[in-house]
Amino acid sequence: MKIPSRSDVEALDRSDPLAPMRGRFHLPEGMIYLDGNSLGPMARSVPAAMDTTLREEWATGLISSWNNAGWWDLAITLGDRIGQLLGAQSGQIVVSDSTSVNLYKALHAALALRPDRNVILSEAESFPTDLYMIEGVLQACPGSECRLVDFSEPGLNDALDDQVAVVLLSNVNYRSGALLDMQAITRKAHEAGALVVWDLCHSAGVIPMELDAWDVDFAVGCTYKYLNGGPGSPSFIYAPKRLHDTIKQPLSGWWGHAAPFAFETGYRAASGVRAFLCGSQPILSMAALAAALGAYDGVELADIRTKSQELTGLFIELVAANCPSLGIASPCDGQVRGSQVALAHENGYAIIQAMIARGIVGDFRAPDILRFGFAPLYIRYVDVWDAADQLADILNTHEWREPRFQVRSEVT
Amino acid sequence: MKIPSRSDVEALDRSDPLAPMRGRFHLPEGMIYLDGNSLGPMARSVPAAMDTTLREEWATGLISSWNNAGWWDLAITLGDRIGQLLGAQSGQIVVSDSTSVNLYKALHAALALRPDRNVILSEAESFPTDLYMIEGVLQACPGSECRLVDFSEPGLNDALDDQVAVVLLSNVNYRSGALLDMQAITRKAHEAGALVVWDLCHSAGVIPMELDAWDVDFAVGCTYKYLNGGPGSPSFIYAPKRLHDTIKQPLSGWWGHAAPFAFETGYRAASGVRAFLCGSQPILSMAALAAALGAYDGVELADIRTKSQELTGLFIELVAANCPSLGIASPCDGQVRGSQVALAHENGYAIIQAMIARGIVGDFRAPDILRFGFAPLYIRYVDVWDAADQLADILNTHEWREPRFQVRSEVT
Repeated sequence: MKIPSRSDVEALDRSDPLAPMRGRFHLPEGMIYLDGNSLGPMARSVPAAMDTTLREEWATGLISSWNNAGWWDLAITLGDRIGQLLGAQSGQIVVSDSTSVNLYKALHAALALRPDRNVILSEAESFPTDLYMIEGVLQACPGSECRLVDFSEPGLNDALDDQVAVVLLSNVNYRSGALLDMQAITRKAHEAGALVVWDLCHSAGVIPMELDAWDVDFAVGCTYKYLNGGPGSPSFIYAPKRLHDTIKQPLSGWWGHAAPFAFETGYRAASGVRAFLCGSQPILSMAALAAALGAYDGVELADIRTKSQELTGLFIELVAANCPSLGIASPCDGQVRGSQVALAHENGYAIIQAMIARGIVGDFRAPDILRFGFAPLYIRYVDVWDAADQLADILNTHEWREPRFQVRSEVT
Repeated sequence: MKIPSRSDVEALDRSDPLAPMRGRFHLPEGMIYLDGNSLGPMARSVPAAMDTTLREEWATGLISSWNNAGWWDLAITLGDRIGQLLGAQSGQIVVSDSTSVNLYKALHAALALRPDRNVILSEAESFPTDLYMIEGVLQACPGSECRLVDFSEPGLNDALDDQVAVVLLSNVNYRSGALLDMQAITRKAHEAGALVVWDLCHSAGVIPMELDAWDVDFAVGCTYKYLNGGPGSPSFIYAPKRLHDTIKQPLSGWWGHAAPFAFETGYRAASGVRAFLCGSQPILSMAALAAALGAYDGVELADIRTKSQELTGLFIELVAANCPSLGIASPCDGQVRGSQVALAHENGYAIIQAMIARGIVGDFRAPDILRFGFAPLYIRYVDVWDAADQLADILNTHEWREPRFQVRSEVT
């Protein structure tokens, strides 16, 4: 098959129904930003919204804004808006705390529902904090253990015995971009008597899903990747209504109390998903998230998914044709691929640095992964073509061998 | 003694060394804001700083700002700045998560250091979330229990037996404003073999203290009251260097890992106080806090304390003279009083509403407390005089009996 030319992909941009959405974002001139799966760019609506929050709500409204500006309910109102992207009816998601902290809550809540079982099942390829939080949860649950399966093998069926209380999995793998079948795995886990906790960090906002219809038990995810909430914006946590009477988690702070301003001495969990709240939440970061979510107004997730598969597929096609020294570490089947592409090269760090120097921003994940995210709201087909073209040139010219690209200094 | 006249207190403002600091804050015209102990006002430096964070760091710097704009280290750099107000050398405080979550970490870390003991000692008059978080911690520690003492009686000595692992107390009581002797109680707890966790929410930034010199074990506090960080700005947690090798807490997320970007499968705690970090932090809220802390530049906490005692003392004096129907629920001895004054009245809610309608903002704490905070950086002596004068008038005219002031609607 003929490799697409630049003018071929320019035509794709002209017929892209999502093309106008790019204007909703601030994107630096001359940069191709393929790291929105790590930190989404700023929506253009954010500065004005923040100014209102600062000057009208905080500076002028002061304490009254907890009611009058809706601060107190932001955890719920933001959760409801995100729920629309996840197939969750309102009142089942709160935005609060970090993903790591929400994993802790969800795992505790799930374990509490299976007191006769003692295993948390996950996979070794999880984003590490998922495994670290399992360790933290296990400290509090003597006799419990973590079992790691390899999803590249048919490992789940064998592992799902009657000791498994909860299965914690990432919907999209943070490195490879592999997409797990949430519906099928949830059903399988339930048939084995286990609960599921889904980590949606790398799928929320870019993969269509139906948390309610698929009978998911708990889910958590971050809001600063495809949801563009801003650096470190708070995480979300989901629990369906059918579990709301049973939520029991140890971060039992006053925001999750049934009557937070009654100042009772004893804890009584709030009804509903508010039982997952703990302490005061960073309203300024939540205000930015509220504005950023407006970038999804009028957008169909099905359109996002279609374009996402085309963008990632195009990148893989171009790399495979023009960059023979790179391994493709993501699924080649677009049906089981998230919105990112991982390439493998032993000098991956230097290659990423050389690309960044040319204004093409991806990131490196040890030991050898070059990772590129393709956010359909603002990435064009021509960006994909240019990125692949530049990457091929960097490899052909060995530009990445320059000493300035070898020094490891980044934390991210 | 003669009750001070308005012109008497105007003279106090003219000679107040902190008077110029008021200009550092945005304060609504015509409002006397006596609720900075709940939500501090916005420093005038915040909007410009936020604009820089949004447009230069996030929108333009994007992912590189984790390094280049110092986002990754904000938890530490903000902690160091706050440490200067608390008598803590650098590298011993991180800003992260909510106070409730940090209480959870600190209590776990303290319990882990006393495996042979099983009691958390606190007081019933604590801010409720402190007690709720104790409940959460106890869930994970079978056999442990909470014991509540009454500090209005000489309860601590009797209660400090050899089963007490950790004492959790508020330095300043959130309702009464009573100030506990941190140094003496810490010494007494240590003599009994217990550790201390201090809740500094109502004292940080307004009460001079020496966490290092007083041998405090752990401390937590919020940054949105006297530190003016903005609604829900993240909390801080302190641990002294002598305990850094021993920090063990179950919220073992990747930000607290020794090598967060090595993506190791197993958790290894970071050295130092970073072991208290868990997940990604809300950078925009932290940026506002960073700007707000500039309001403390060049300010001596001793001057703040002197003025604080004078402001609260003046308010008590005026209320006692002119509002005989109000009880004084705060200590009359300025040495053992924080920077707030609690008054008691069975119709406290309506009285507070009537005051707010006149532009004097305090808050109500059930069942009967009218609570007023006096932040010396921006409250003038004449504000105190006017607030007391208006309060007396509201009581004398029975204005608070108007139906519009009776309806309970606030969440805060």
